[in-house]
Amino acid sequence: MPAMRMWGGRFEDETDERVIAFTRSIEVDAEFALDDIDGSIAHAHGLGRAGLLEPAEVERLVAGLVGLRAEVEAGTLRWDPALEDVHLNVEAALGERIGPLARKLHTGRSRNDQVATDLRLWTRRAVERLDAAAVGLQRALVGLAEFEIETIMPGSTHIQPAQPLLFAHHLLAYVEMLERDRGRLADAGRRANLSPLGAGALAGAAFPLDRAATAAELGFDGVTANSIDAVSDRDFIVEVLAAAVLCQVHLSRLAEEITWWSNPAFGWVRVADAFSTGSSMMPNKRNPDPAELVRGRAGRSIAGLVAVLGVLKGLPLAYQRDLQEANPPYLGVVGVVEASLGVMAGLIETLQVDSGRMRSAAGAGFTTATSVADALVRHGVPFRVAHGVVGALVARAEADGLAELAALPDLAYAAALSGADDPTAVGLASVPGIADELRAAANVEAAIASADVTGGTAPGRVRAALAAARERLGT
Amino acid sequence: MPAMRMWGGRFEDETDERVIAFTRSIEVDAEFALDDIDGSIAHAHGLGRAGLLEPAEVERLVAGLVGLRAEVEAGTLRWDPALEDVHLNVEAALGERIGPLARKLHTGRSRNDQVATDLRLWTRRAVERLDAAAVGLQRALVGLAEFEIETIMPGSTHIQPAQPLLFAHHLLAYVEMLERDRGRLADAGRRANLSPLGAGALAGAAFPLDRAATAAELGFDGVTANSIDAVSDRDFIVEVLAAAVLCQVHLSRLAEEITWWSNPAFGWVRVADAFSTGSSMMPNKRNPDPAELVRGRAGRSIAGLVAVLGVLKGLPLAYQRDLQEANPPYLGVVGVVEASLGVMAGLIETLQVDSGRMRSAAGAGFTTATSVADALVRHGVPFRVAHGVVGALVARAEADGLAELAALPDLAYAAALSGADDPTAVGLASVPGIADELRAAANVEAAIASADVTGGTAPGRVRAALAAARERLGT
Amino acid sequence: MPAMRMWGGRFEDETDERVIAFTRSIEVDAEFALDDIDGSIAHAHGLGRAGLLEPAEVERLVAGLVGLRAEVEAGTLRWDPALEDVHLNVEAALGERIGPLARKLHTGRSRNDQVATDLRLWTRRAVERLDAAAVGLQRALVGLAEFEIETIMPGSTHIQPAQPLLFAHHLLAYVEMLERDRGRLADAGRRANLSPLGAGALAGAAFPLDRAATAAELGFDGVTANSIDAVSDRDFIVEVLAAAVLCQVHLSRLAEEITWWSNPAFGWVRVADAFSTGSSMMPNKRNPDPAELVRGRAGRSIAGLVAVLGVLKGLPLAYQRDLQEANPPYLGVVGVVEASLGVMAGLIETLQVDSGRMRSAAGAGFTTATSVADALVRHGVPFRVAHGVVGALVARAEADGLAELAALPDLAYAAALSGADDPTAVGLASVPGIADELRAAANVEAAIASADVTGGTAPGRVRAALAAARERLGT
Amino acid sequence: MPAMRMWGGRFEDETDERVIAFTRSIEVDAEFALDDIDGSIAHAHGLGRAGLLEPAEVERLVAGLVGLRAEVEAGTLRWDPALEDVHLNVEAALGERIGPLARKLHTGRSRNDQVATDLRLWTRRAVERLDAAAVGLQRALVGLAEFEIETIMPGSTHIQPAQPLLFAHHLLAYVEMLERDRGRLADAGRRANLSPLGAGALAGAAFPLDRAATAAELGFDGVTANSIDAVSDRDFIVEVLAAAVLCQVHLSRLAEEITWWSNPAFGWVRVADAFSTGSSMMPNKRNPDPAELVRGRAGRSIAGLVAVLGVLKGLPLAYQRDLQEANPPYLGVVGVVEASLGVMAGLIETLQVDSGRMRSAAGAGFTTATSVADALVRHGVPFRVAHGVVGALVARAEADGLAELAALPDLAYAAALSGADDPTAVGLASVPGIADELRAAANVEAAIASADVTGGTAPGRVRAALAAARERLGT
Repeated sequence: MPAMRMWGGRFEDETDERVIAFTRSIEVDAEFALDDIDGSIAHAHGLGRAGLLEPAEVERLVAGLVGLRAEVEAGTLRWDPALEDVHLNVEAALGERIGPLARKLHTGRSRNDQVATDLRLWTRRAVERLDAAAVGLQRALVGLAEFEIETIMPGSTHIQPAQPLLFAHHLLAYVEMLERDRGRLADAGRRANLSPLGAGALAGAAFPLDRAATAAELGFDGVTANSIDAVSDRDFIVEVLAAAVLCQVHLSRLAEEITWWSNPAFGWVRVADAFSTGSSMMPNKRNPDPAELVRGRAGRSIAGLVAVLGVLKGLPLAYQRDLQEANPPYLGVVGVVEASLGVMAGLIETLQVDSGRMRSAAGAGFTTATSVADALVRHGVPFRVAHGVVGALVARAEADGLAELAALPDLAYAAALSGADDPTAVGLASVPGIADELRAAANVEAAIASADVTGGTAPGRVRAALAAARERLGT
Repeated sequence: MPAMRMWGGRFEDETDERVIAFTRSIEVDAEFALDDIDGSIAHAHGLGRAGLLEPAEVERLVAGLVGLRAEVEAGTLRWDPALEDVHLNVEAALGERIGPLARKLHTGRSRNDQVATDLRLWTRRAVERLDAAAVGLQRALVGLAEFEIETIMPGSTHIQPAQPLLFAHHLLAYVEMLERDRGRLADAGRRANLSPLGAGALAGAAFPLDRAATAAELGFDGVTANSIDAVSDRDFIVEVLAAAVLCQVHLSRLAEEITWWSNPAFGWVRVADAFSTGSSMMPNKRNPDPAELVRGRAGRSIAGLVAVLGVLKGLPLAYQRDLQEANPPYLGVVGVVEASLGVMAGLIETLQVDSGRMRSAAGAGFTTATSVADALVRHGVPFRVAHGVVGALVARAEADGLAELAALPDLAYAAALSGADDPTAVGLASVPGIADELRAAANVEAAIASADVTGGTAPGRVRAALAAARERLGT
Repeated sequence: MPAMRMWGGRFEDETDERVIAFTRSIEVDAEFALDDIDGSIAHAHGLGRAGLLEPAEVERLVAGLVGLRAEVEAGTLRWDPALEDVHLNVEAALGERIGPLARKLHTGRSRNDQVATDLRLWTRRAVERLDAAAVGLQRALVGLAEFEIETIMPGSTHIQPAQPLLFAHHLLAYVEMLERDRGRLADAGRRANLSPLGAGALAGAAFPLDRAATAAELGFDGVTANSIDAVSDRDFIVEVLAAAVLCQVHLSRLAEEITWWSNPAFGWVRVADAFSTGSSMMPNKRNPDPAELVRGRAGRSIAGLVAVLGVLKGLPLAYQRDLQEANPPYLGVVGVVEASLGVMAGLIETLQVDSGRMRSAAGAGFTTATSVADALVRHGVPFRVAHGVVGALVARAEADGLAELAALPDLAYAAALSGADDPTAVGLASVPGIADELRAAANVEAAIASADVTGGTAPGRVRAALAAARERLGT
Repeated sequence: MPAMRMWGGRFEDETDERVIAFTRSIEVDAEFALDDIDGSIAHAHGLGRAGLLEPAEVERLVAGLVGLRAEVEAGTLRWDPALEDVHLNVEAALGERIGPLARKLHTGRSRNDQVATDLRLWTRRAVERLDAAAVGLQRALVGLAEFEIETIMPGSTHIQPAQPLLFAHHLLAYVEMLERDRGRLADAGRRANLSPLGAGALAGAAFPLDRAATAAELGFDGVTANSIDAVSDRDFIVEVLAAAVLCQVHLSRLAEEITWWSNPAFGWVRVADAFSTGSSMMPNKRNPDPAELVRGRAGRSIAGLVAVLGVLKGLPLAYQRDLQEANPPYLGVVGVVEASLGVMAGLIETLQVDSGRMRSAAGAGFTTATSVADALVRHGVPFRVAHGVVGALVARAEADGLAELAALPDLAYAAALSGADDPTAVGLASVPGIADELRAAANVEAAIASADVTGGTAPGRVRAALAAARERLGT
């Protein structure tokens, strides 16, 4: 079947079958159908305002387009692969429904500014969907944090125990990441919200179109300032992608933690049955597959950004067909991130936390050693010296097979202090009660309470952060 | 030589030589030396405010740090590779200069929040430098556009002649791209401008530090809201990189055009001797190497973004050593983009344009065909029909070996119109003077003048755009 | 609709709807259906050999699978999205056709070794298809080179004229690249051709399966040596992808040249109508879209490799669900490269070459300057000196507005030689006839003939290379 | 300081300072100095053979180059940044040492074929180094596997317990990966080992150079077949990089496992002090930094491959300056992978394994459930039914708070069997002793012993694999 071509006037030979299949984009850009129709309705109004169409013509064109819109929404419009892309499909379908008048619609417009308009309208919708999905996960995280407000966990750096934390504080770190993601998406959406319509193929339309009026009808904040740039610019794709990919990377960090915390070695969390899958061979398995896929899809999302930047690199102005290749990764990544946010929200909402196991691990690995050092600092020991003293205590406890510093005898404390090359430390060695004071500093709850700065893990600070998050989320 | 370690209290064995070399970062993070010192000065003041240091101690610490700052600026401070990184180097150097008091500086601070602070201070400076360099190139482009305001070129799509343009209009497309780059960099800089100092290792400092006061002293707009996030967050690197990489991709598009336009087949521009290089073997060569390198470095810049995202993917909270790996690509790409902007500015400032060759190519490839179709539209011919009519004219001219539509005989115009399946078009075939009217529309200057919409290439529009750009640039 | 699960024995709750959609892979892995069935047939035979199935059971299972194979080939088998993936679909379809016996098929097998087997069988077929497509393009290139064996072009470096070449020589460079591509694909195919079947989930099957016999039945060269590695290894995907992506990058270089050479500034080639497309707005356009898409798809292909490497990075052993994410980019890139090779073959077969324009450009840019320098070397002038002398000649010719060195007067030659800081060169200045000799060296055909080394562009060398290529291609 | 230029004959103006800095490559390509000198020695011999140099001239040139070689090896040769690259530096240094004769060396050679030769010589050395480093790690892994040959661990999929394994079997999976890495590197090295020397700038040298003889002198297996391809080909970089990057990805998987297994929740391994680092703030920390950096550097290595492919994409023939940008990532990644292999070998050699904790975790998560299902299969129960029966047992045990299936009462086994929709299973419910038989199958050691297929984890199979590895490694 030969392709129907809307540009064949100067061509003698049919397009090669392989080329038709190779260049066709309708499988991807059907996604823009509503945007394409909305843009055409506004353009028809614009042609009317410019006197290029009679009012009755505008009315018939718009009525036809509104009808097509309903067909798209109902899923009843069939896309014809012989018609290359969504633009020619829509124009052809319009022609079938309203007759030759449809041939006037493309006046003062090129597919170059048309697809740029579609993409920006779609982008606006995509940014809204991503934002809503991010909010959904933020709410789930805040909800879990509130429910587990008393839960204590060992905070980690280098995947090794570091200092004890409130679990809620850990969850709020992700709320912060998502807040930045939302900020980036909003900035990207704002910068993208300009109308390229009227740029034509690259030089600007040769009719007195009121670009600003059409832009306003479509909800754009203004018009693009240079017609060549308008048709060759895909910055907004890169910008939205960069923000979305970083969001997926954030999710992959959470997903990584959940997969490991689900392992019985930790046993800190249990992913609900509804968010787990099994094995075809091993009857014992309960796997956190959604979390694994979120992690894996971060890899694919990064690649989507690489694809678009790689396509743009070294591309001369103005429109090149290479730009078509930016669309599949763009749509793909946005879909992945939106779905991942939704799945992670559900997973977090149904996550079971074993606060007992978390708490019992909170002191392992001498996580309160820093508190002990800080206690020495309060006595005037320089921090670097205090660090060395407590390091020696840790070495001693480990050599003696003790799980915590509090179990060390008084003499051990005195020995460590006496060995320091600092007079204040050496002096402390003989102060009565110093060992008990340091043991008190080694208490997990005390250590948590001591992190009482803005953004710290002290309970009051975490409660305040939760309240602030709630207020920001408007719930 | 064994490494000097500031954390060795609990360790029994020396670090393996290979590990010392493998983990060392001073070659890279020496770049942050000034930021590290500035952060330490503010931290010393903060320790004083919190009562953890005596005023005299603060004074001595700050004086020592100010001295180190001068040494760094003078290039006289030697970095000791045995000291791992810039933080330990600075602390050790301070100790050599002011004695044991230096051991109190690290109170309530970890390298985790310290390096995050350094990176954000460096980021602020980097964004300022990139912005200035982008402005420099914008000025060069505007300057050339003004100088060549009369120059006409054939605009291209698909690397084939499309429509005639003002060369200045083409240059202004790049000014727009750079303007968006600047906007993205500014947004990224704004979001990055928060102080992580006080987050400690991950839990928050255990001393009553006034984080906001220290942040203000360092010129930050506020403090980070969650201590775990504060030390594991490298979003600002990704965000600045994404903006910088896209800028380099923009430069690569300009570079690609310049390399081809320099080829004698085009002969549109000549890169100055000062921006060209020769060949070791071929005495005839004048190569636009800087442009080629700008293009190639876009490939490497994209990879820098991949590196950072790849490092972050799936990384558990909080700080992991993997984060160190984000720094080399970050610094590298920022340096590349800054240098590329500078080199391209110089190249554009000294570029010779052969406006004659551009103009003589402006009509080749029937670039005014759209204007002819538009002329038919003004007579009521539906655009899709007009497109077909002109397509037939192009086919006819090409078959007859004619270089432009104006050279076709009257009969050819009449035949093309008569062949259309639209009554208006058929009727026009017998309208006297229609061929002459269409020939007039095929004039290059007329075609350019007709693109008289906002952002179009009509001379008045381009002059207005130039004026607006000048105003924006403040020159 | 709840998903049908073959692993639900220990689960209480239904899988969340979002999770079903998020984890489903049948849209992608349906591509492996034939491989999956072939693997199952061989596995059924293996279960029979191990005495785990009666001969009659084997017969019924195999007959059922053969029937499914026919359904897949006929396109009549419907995939049920509720059944997750191709493996469960095939097993369920088999159950519908042959009853409960199907429940014995998965003995001693896991989806982990099953999908690895499917992927390797598919890989073998993919490598064969890619190789055939590469040969197709090699033949097209050799055919064009033979047809244009007399055509002379200006060879370029830095996109600037360098030295004259035979156009056939240029085309043969691509034949070489494709030959290496084929070698890499063959190596990858060889390394991939081992059977993982029998590795089970990760520990190895717990039945006395003769893995080697099953491997032989499936045409594998042997079995994988470690069961954990067998299910977590996707090296073969990376290796085939790396080879395929590099092939696409090679195609992108050819595509880039064709897009520019099609521009009227060059006018060296004309892409056939069948491989061109037009514009919806500009009736004059003939665009080499397939070449642009080949170039753009190189960007997306590189990203496919990034995706797989990014998925694998940091993944613990053995199978993780992340691995599923390697499949879409793998299948996608292989499809893109195969199609691109086919389209480029057709484009090259139908390419029109304007040998006149190529030849007339061959001398522009003083492309024979190196030959002139080489002529001086034959008189004993050190090459570095000769390079300087000819450089001066080029500068003089350019200043005088001359297009070729041959047009310079005798005095110019003498002056350039006299100005050298080398006695041999200075002596040559007064040798009678030296200017004529150098003018002869500046002849384009003479320059080409002089490159008479293995792999050089001298006509005899190029003809020999063509003959060798023909022999290698077996046509 | 103006740059010294060996190509300036036709240039009037000095090169811009920014351009000199921007284009300079000596910081990177100094790495090729020895290769450059070796290539020049062979080239000098070739010029002699072709009669272009007198024997005495060859002797003096070679003696000068041999002297330079010694200076490079001694580290006493100073690179002059004003001389652009290593080639011009070497030529200039030679001139300083032997006088004007050095000006004859570049006869019949361009930097284009020269740098390609250097790169291929360097590649050969790099492949050898990487192979030796990979062997080193293989030996370390085999050594640890032999030492821990009795150690049992819980094998994982989806980061959840799957089936018990020998720890040695797990380690051998990495030996297999490294073996494939070595195979890929060897293939790449073989394909790269051809001499481009004699290709000149792109057309082939215009002197009767015996390319094969020079190639043989340099240890190449032959010569490149097409001069244009010879100077524009960087396939060998991509191929070596792809192999090296995949190797680093393998290392990152091992590194990831080690970081988690070092966490006290697992406590399976302890990284030696010599391969650990501490914290500047937390005295308790022992961090496996080298493993983290290996993981992070996998991210940067992937990016290196992206960089090179991105540089090559869409690059016209022949040499473009963009190619210079392939070198930094190439050298960087090779260095990273070599160092990572060395560090990981040391880390593995000194790794302490807590076999007791591994063994006690081996049964957790019902890891022998598959063995129980397999036992039912041996009684004729279809596997899919057996899977369901054991799934029910797991659910029951979990509900009852039992840690292993063996702890379930007889009645539970009977109930699970009776509930199946398969007569054989239902029949088994009343077979005396069936519960005990299934309990025996649930034994960890029994489960391991049952995986007695080629590549399985049964002890005999693992010992055989170790012996085979030892033989392959030649130790």
